[in-house]
Amino acid sequence: MLICKYMNFYVMTLFPEMILQGMSQSITGRAMAKGAISVEAVNIRDYTNERHGHVDDAPYGGGAGMVMQAQPICDCYEALLERIRRQGAEKKPRVIYLTPQGRVFDQSYAEELAGEENLIFLCGHYEGVDERALTLLETENVSIGDYVLTGGELPAMVMMDCISRLVPGVLGKEESADIETFHDGLLEYPQYTRPEVYRDLRVPEILLSGHHGNVEKWRREQSIERTLRFRPDLLPKARLTEKEQAYLRGLLAEQELGGN
Amino acid sequence: MLICKYMNFYVMTLFPEMILQGMSQSITGRAMAKGAISVEAVNIRDYTNERHGHVDDAPYGGGAGMVMQAQPICDCYEALLERIRRQGAEKKPRVIYLTPQGRVFDQSYAEELAGEENLIFLCGHYEGVDERALTLLETENVSIGDYVLTGGELPAMVMMDCISRLVPGVLGKEESADIETFHDGLLEYPQYTRPEVYRDLRVPEILLSGHHGNVEKWRREQSIERTLRFRPDLLPKARLTEKEQAYLRGLLAEQELGGN
Repeated sequence: MLICKYMNFYVMTLFPEMILQGMSQSITGRAMAKGAISVEAVNIRDYTNERHGHVDDAPYGGGAGMVMQAQPICDCYEALLERIRRQGAEKKPRVIYLTPQGRVFDQSYAEELAGEENLIFLCGHYEGVDERALTLLETENVSIGDYVLTGGELPAMVMMDCISRLVPGVLGKEESADIETFHDGLLEYPQYTRPEVYRDLRVPEILLSGHHGNVEKWRREQSIERTLRFRPDLLPKARLTEKEQAYLRGLLAEQELGGN
Repeated sequence: MLICKYMNFYVMTLFPEMILQGMSQSITGRAMAKGAISVEAVNIRDYTNERHGHVDDAPYGGGAGMVMQAQPICDCYEALLERIRRQGAEKKPRVIYLTPQGRVFDQSYAEELAGEENLIFLCGHYEGVDERALTLLETENVSIGDYVLTGGELPAMVMMDCISRLVPGVLGKEESADIETFHDGLLEYPQYTRPEVYRDLRVPEILLSGHHGNVEKWRREQSIERTLRFRPDLLPKARLTEKEQAYLRGLLAEQELGGN
């Protein structure tokens, strides 16, 4: 996994305030303050040649909804590209169009994108974007999941949040990008913190034992059990030791006996 | 699909401003102004009994990161529940905990949730939430995709945005929730709007023909082609007419001949 020292995000949108406010919170806001990432939101509407400021029109062939026109998007993109080039970028940045019609975003895709220095996001609204804009910008079409949203802003923020976590210096020592969900392709084990007893519910004894090896073993087994229960589709790609594979076979055998 | 006339969202979070700012934009902001949906963000930190306002502590059993404690979450939840009950809710609202360890959110899940009147979201941060809080709140654990984010706020906003679109009165006549992606389980066809020629790229002739039947047929075929190309995993569940099934078989036969 190749990771550079900073990441510049550029977002082409009709709602720049939403992007800037959302990204300025919490961990991403701190990363912006530290200079580990930068986020710039450009208003597509500033680039329309239409005298009333319109950026959309009815779809050819009829149908409900409005379609975003190619001209404001293409002109916005070219102005942005020119600026990024003047800042010394050597290659054309990848342009991501957020759409349910896309490659499905996941953690390994995020790791791939975290290796870039500049990323441009195009956020659509209304019924979509004139196909020719996507052709001219050579967009990568990306979906964050199989659901329909009112626009591309939230998905762009989701992707930037996820990618930011992988940029060095963004997560502090109190957080951790390594030991967590999808590590080795498994779901995370359950977590407990003080107090030992809360409303009659006790922390599992093993976590209080101080025996690091046993804790590790218990956590891995919990991860395997949860993945089997909630996301069995992840198991074929999970990285398990031989002992863990045997543990999983045991769970599967129990399931069969139990008739589940 | 049962849909009620309004929807109240309650979000338990450490970043209430982020939720309120994000949801107040665009279509969801308009829906809030019209009273079709309401969004309330409650700060979990307001409910801690800890004198310094802490809401997290180190995990039992060791490991990086901090875990959110059960007490502030449970007390926050109970205060909220009491208030929702006083407002006349007859049943306990569903409580959704945003976590990569969850059932994967999709459009049919959104349709199911759009039938509720009240929904509570619990947004975690740091390394997660004490498992006992999830047990006591009887949370539904939901993931918006196979990637790790810095907190549950963006996923909660994604879910609220998606569900809001399905609440009557939220989408205006210029938008449409029906004719779009995942309709009949297919990806959407390409869209075009004015002008007919942009930078030498022409709108497909058929869309200018005015022949509604031919346009419909072309669009369906484009949807089938795109789904085959980008998301073949969706095809087994797609609802196709017999003619469309024959069209798909033709495409598959071409692929085989082409050696793809």
